[in-house]
Amino acid sequence: MLTPLLRAGGRRLWLCVAALVLLTSMGRLHAEDGYALWMRYVPLDAALADAYRSQLGAVGAPDQTPTQHAAREELSRGLAGLLGSAPQLHADAGVGQALILGTPQSSAQLAPYRKDLESLGAEGYLLRQTQLGGREVLLVAAREDIGVLYGVFHLLRLLQTGVPLQGLEVRESPKLKLRLLNHWDNLDRYVERGYAGSSLWDWQTLPDWRDPRYTDYARANASLGINGTVLNNVNANALSLTRPYLLKAAALAEVFRPYGIRVYLSTRFSAPIELGGLKTADPLDPAVQRWWRDKANEIYALIPDFGGFLVKANSEGQPGPQDYGRSHADGANLLGDALAAHGGVVMWRAFVYAHDVPEDRTKQAYGEFSGLDGAFHPNVIVQVKNGPLDFQPREPLHPLFGAMPHTPLMMELQISKEYLGFATHLVYLGPLYEEVLRSDTHARGAGSTVARVIDGSLDGHALTGIAGVANTGTDRNWTGSHFDQANWYAFGRLAWNPHQSARDIAKDWAAMTFSPDPAVVQSIVGMMMASREAAVDYMTPLGLHHLMARGHHYGPGPWVAGGPRVDWTSVYYHRADRDGIGFDRTAHGSNAVAQYAPAVANVYGDLEQVPESLLLWFHHVPWDHRMHSGRSLWDELVGRYSRGVRQVQAMQDSWDGLKGGVDAPRHQQVAAFLRIQHNEAQWWRDASVAYFQSLSGRPLPAGEVPPPQPLAYYQSLQFPFAPGDGR
Amino acid sequence: MLTPLLRAGGRRLWLCVAALVLLTSMGRLHAEDGYALWMRYVPLDAALADAYRSQLGAVGAPDQTPTQHAAREELSRGLAGLLGSAPQLHADAGVGQALILGTPQSSAQLAPYRKDLESLGAEGYLLRQTQLGGREVLLVAAREDIGVLYGVFHLLRLLQTGVPLQGLEVRESPKLKLRLLNHWDNLDRYVERGYAGSSLWDWQTLPDWRDPRYTDYARANASLGINGTVLNNVNANALSLTRPYLLKAAALAEVFRPYGIRVYLSTRFSAPIELGGLKTADPLDPAVQRWWRDKANEIYALIPDFGGFLVKANSEGQPGPQDYGRSHADGANLLGDALAAHGGVVMWRAFVYAHDVPEDRTKQAYGEFSGLDGAFHPNVIVQVKNGPLDFQPREPLHPLFGAMPHTPLMMELQISKEYLGFATHLVYLGPLYEEVLRSDTHARGAGSTVARVIDGSLDGHALTGIAGVANTGTDRNWTGSHFDQANWYAFGRLAWNPHQSARDIAKDWAAMTFSPDPAVVQSIVGMMMASREAAVDYMTPLGLHHLMARGHHYGPGPWVAGGPRVDWTSVYYHRADRDGIGFDRTAHGSNAVAQYAPAVANVYGDLEQVPESLLLWFHHVPWDHRMHSGRSLWDELVGRYSRGVRQVQAMQDSWDGLKGGVDAPRHQQVAAFLRIQHNEAQWWRDASVAYFQSLSGRPLPAGEVPPPQPLAYYQSLQFPFAPGDGR
Repeated sequence: MLTPLLRAGGRRLWLCVAALVLLTSMGRLHAEDGYALWMRYVPLDAALADAYRSQLGAVGAPDQTPTQHAAREELSRGLAGLLGSAPQLHADAGVGQALILGTPQSSAQLAPYRKDLESLGAEGYLLRQTQLGGREVLLVAAREDIGVLYGVFHLLRLLQTGVPLQGLEVRESPKLKLRLLNHWDNLDRYVERGYAGSSLWDWQTLPDWRDPRYTDYARANASLGINGTVLNNVNANALSLTRPYLLKAAALAEVFRPYGIRVYLSTRFSAPIELGGLKTADPLDPAVQRWWRDKANEIYALIPDFGGFLVKANSEGQPGPQDYGRSHADGANLLGDALAAHGGVVMWRAFVYAHDVPEDRTKQAYGEFSGLDGAFHPNVIVQVKNGPLDFQPREPLHPLFGAMPHTPLMMELQISKEYLGFATHLVYLGPLYEEVLRSDTHARGAGSTVARVIDGSLDGHALTGIAGVANTGTDRNWTGSHFDQANWYAFGRLAWNPHQSARDIAKDWAAMTFSPDPAVVQSIVGMMMASREAAVDYMTPLGLHHLMARGHHYGPGPWVAGGPRVDWTSVYYHRADRDGIGFDRTAHGSNAVAQYAPAVANVYGDLEQVPESLLLWFHHVPWDHRMHSGRSLWDELVGRYSRGVRQVQAMQDSWDGLKGGVDAPRHQQVAAFLRIQHNEAQWWRDASVAYFQSLSGRPLPAGEVPPPQPLAYYQSLQFPFAPGDGR
Repeated sequence: MLTPLLRAGGRRLWLCVAALVLLTSMGRLHAEDGYALWMRYVPLDAALADAYRSQLGAVGAPDQTPTQHAAREELSRGLAGLLGSAPQLHADAGVGQALILGTPQSSAQLAPYRKDLESLGAEGYLLRQTQLGGREVLLVAAREDIGVLYGVFHLLRLLQTGVPLQGLEVRESPKLKLRLLNHWDNLDRYVERGYAGSSLWDWQTLPDWRDPRYTDYARANASLGINGTVLNNVNANALSLTRPYLLKAAALAEVFRPYGIRVYLSTRFSAPIELGGLKTADPLDPAVQRWWRDKANEIYALIPDFGGFLVKANSEGQPGPQDYGRSHADGANLLGDALAAHGGVVMWRAFVYAHDVPEDRTKQAYGEFSGLDGAFHPNVIVQVKNGPLDFQPREPLHPLFGAMPHTPLMMELQISKEYLGFATHLVYLGPLYEEVLRSDTHARGAGSTVARVIDGSLDGHALTGIAGVANTGTDRNWTGSHFDQANWYAFGRLAWNPHQSARDIAKDWAAMTFSPDPAVVQSIVGMMMASREAAVDYMTPLGLHHLMARGHHYGPGPWVAGGPRVDWTSVYYHRADRDGIGFDRTAHGSNAVAQYAPAVANVYGDLEQVPESLLLWFHHVPWDHRMHSGRSLWDELVGRYSRGVRQVQAMQDSWDGLKGGVDAPRHQQVAAFLRIQHNEAQWWRDASVAYFQSLSGRPLPAGEVPPPQPLAYYQSLQFPFAPGDGR
């Protein structure tokens, strides 16, 4: 094949061809392994690349600050990959540039846009095709450097997804102020509920060695607009506040700073005792207050833009203000006051439940926090999980949303799939996030969505935020599986704007991560959009929840009972017996529904109105209860379990059809993981059906295959080394 | 620059150039990150490549078996990278082939060599340039397929190091039968004494998902001739013998098989109780014997070429035959008999020390094992660490070598640097390995080296072997630091032939791993060859040992005293006081010297003859003892500590000089690690000098800088999360 070319071009051509062969063969050594995430920047279709190249060939971009440098580097890297050649970059504005990056400060050509850009805020940006000096130019403009970097990533996304630049006009500002990852990473690099290897932070070699991976982590987050990272586990070790660890955190902060990412730390409330040698951590004790002020001063001397503290207090054994008879507000304000002079914030988690087992664990956060509305100082924000229990495959919205109008609330989502099959199950969480963000609290009438609570627009808060429990680790592809990258991606996009569509985000991700081929994208998006409901079906259909095995949460455990506390068991939640199943949270039961606004409570509390997807969350229902399908609850339940397994099979079929459309290395891993998922979905279905049948005593509906093993078999399975368990 | 080329070649040339630019830019995304180890296969110097290409252009290589396929693949990969083009591979022998791979069975052209190849054994190979059918050909020939694969790796090494092929004649056979890595990997992926991330074995996704990294691990080992791997920690969990874990091990065995690597398992001696429900694990109990036989049958049904068991028994709390009043031989023979029918072996570790603290821990292995000489069944081999204590920076040879002529002994070396600065210190272990292998036991007179003990030639054993405690993990570069790859490499090369030179091996490694440029190689080899003595100097000079911090062994702890047992303390070993320092192991002391052959004991036991490098291992010596240098022991000791630090500084200087000669990403990491090493060497020196001065009461020699902190400071440092601690 190469022979005619060789004849045509002589020695130089031969060298070129040889180099090509060589580089191609080297390229094979570096197969698609997922490291590049959605920033692969692989060559575009030639015609498309030609069109873009003419619009992007010469670039004016300042290079005075680290963030400006990062923007230039990313643009170069992106265009070199996508278009086949790096752009000519000019630091000074000049004639002939087709693409202009900058701020009114950094670029004279953008000075006239000062006012316009002001309105986009400190992180917003403008992409605009316009005329400048009689020429068509594309502007990537912002008030601050970080906005320009965000704009570059936006532009690269448009190229990756093949959007025409003609007449482009994009105005973007983030809807939320704090857009954070929460790393549940211990100082020994173990990641609690992590399924992607060890912690990214190599504390042993920090601060001396700064792994280039830290920079790529920052790039990935900046590409989404994520602007903060809590480095350590909410189950915090006080040592992370000691000087050696602060120096290590400062080194990371230095790497992240050009990318607009601030470092935060989880703090242990009793640190004044453990580190300071005080006798108490009482928030009203002046010595304690002084200790935290001093500690804050020490931190800011090392990390001038330190973001603040995340605190898990008086929850699951963690120390907190209640140990001294003080309230969560007292505790949060203690830390908030220490940080206030430096501009730091406190994120105080509402994920609390008492040492004493309550009547209904899902009611406790509301019980402890709603009465404190308005009691928090201005730099404190309360961090509330999406639902009232704990990151289940499906939960109703958390009742605190809308119930604390005088307090800024931020949302905590789980990106790591603790209850959703860890890394191996393909479960796209976009629809889960979207579901809760669009849920209507009715706090101020219809349309009072959770998104409007957390973006501050409902109650007029300026301090707003969202946090995602990270799924990243040392695995080469960052997240353990290729598809789990989509959950990091979707979280970041929704953190920027919680009103976006999970499907649209999936489209972008699939095009950038796998292939812009519309048929490939359509097929992958179809799998993704169906995947969360599939997992709900084969794990916890119809509003069931907390049915996983004890401790590590791997695999089914609907029979889990006994142990240290009943609200860590499955039977506490499903309450199944020979007559029926479900947790009665109506006025006849725990009355958890009363924590919602009346318009919501009326729906959830009414057996006729409650969505079937939440039926057994709110109601205890007889097995013979007639469902919308006309089938009995028992038949429907079994049917849902089986439907979930079938959906995984359908995902496998779709993926098989993508052979050739997706690179082989990633295709093989995803196919293997789908096999694991299929086996495990079947296991969930069989074990759950066997267990619930042992209670309902009812025959399987026609056509349903009996579980191949007796219930005792499923109950006997042990997985002592399933990853991610707390420790 | 590209313009003239563009003019010359037209559109096809333009495309080629564009593709080149593109691939180059992609290549940049995949910087040198160490993943490729010594198998980088980067382009050779053009003239050299031209010469090789003419000799290797057309290849005859069979493709009927997985191992044949692996040999072809490796050759293709190697030549494509080194020479810029993959060879034309022909499965059938034919005219015009310049390179012929195969065995007498697989290639008709090699049938005449049957007898010649027989003499090379099952794993040997022949590389020969010769005439065949009137043409010059290069043969890579062997009795078995695996020999051909080994030969391909040898050939690629010759190319990588620029050796001319003209007149090539290489005949190689391994000197040892078992060439094994021992992975101290727990089932939760924690690696005991591992400093390179988590275990390579992802038990959670096995057997369904076979990470391509498993194949690259096998390639790396096969490139050295390593032919076995013990997957799990010698502190073994019995669960690794359960069916689910055997299925996972079988999947790994399938990946490794084409590369000639057998899978072995560490076994817990009490498994018949824990898994089998027996009341005892007594090796003389028929039910116990039956249990192990059944287990062996089960294993071989899944892994037909399973290698055998590695056992740590009655050591550091592990169960063993002594729990039932039986001997190590009884225990080993129990397992050996279970495996014998299948051809498996038992590697029984001699690293034992009693629950009761003995007079001198270094004497215990000899005490327990030497009397058992000849009592082991034929498929049992006793695995002895290089020295009598535990992988210290320097130890004398283990007294069991040469003391058990009727028992096959294999050696256990540590590749992981538990006592040598973990991953961050640059310490090339080749000289350490070489030192012990060349040590003379004098068991059968002068020349009875340890190498001749373990290669079987001294006492006529056919079952021979060597094991290295692996330093691999999930870190991208496999070993945590780039230079630690050299220790894996050197171990493998010496396992093949323990009579090789550590310096020659370092040369090969440096050329393949960094650059074949002679100046670069010389500089790197210089650093490597000096590095081990530097570490001895700044940690444990003059025969000192076991002076590290407790538990994790990170950093200096010469003051460590107290705790559960005195032989886990430092003061037990250095015995320093105001008068002198050192452990008296002469006839006046513990008389450990008596465990050696008289010719050795006479040297070690004599203060005049003992090498100063082992002085304080064998003698308690006054601080004023006159050294060969003319200085007092105290002055010499301090001088050695400082010399070690200076040597690290010299390594930094050498490395700085290699900027530009070594790719930037790896240069940066090594430079950062050398900074860490320098800081820590200084810390070792300062802390040790401060401590020993507190005992000797002597002034520092002239010119020596006093430690900048008081002793109490060094004693106060705590590192609770230092990696690799046992757990």
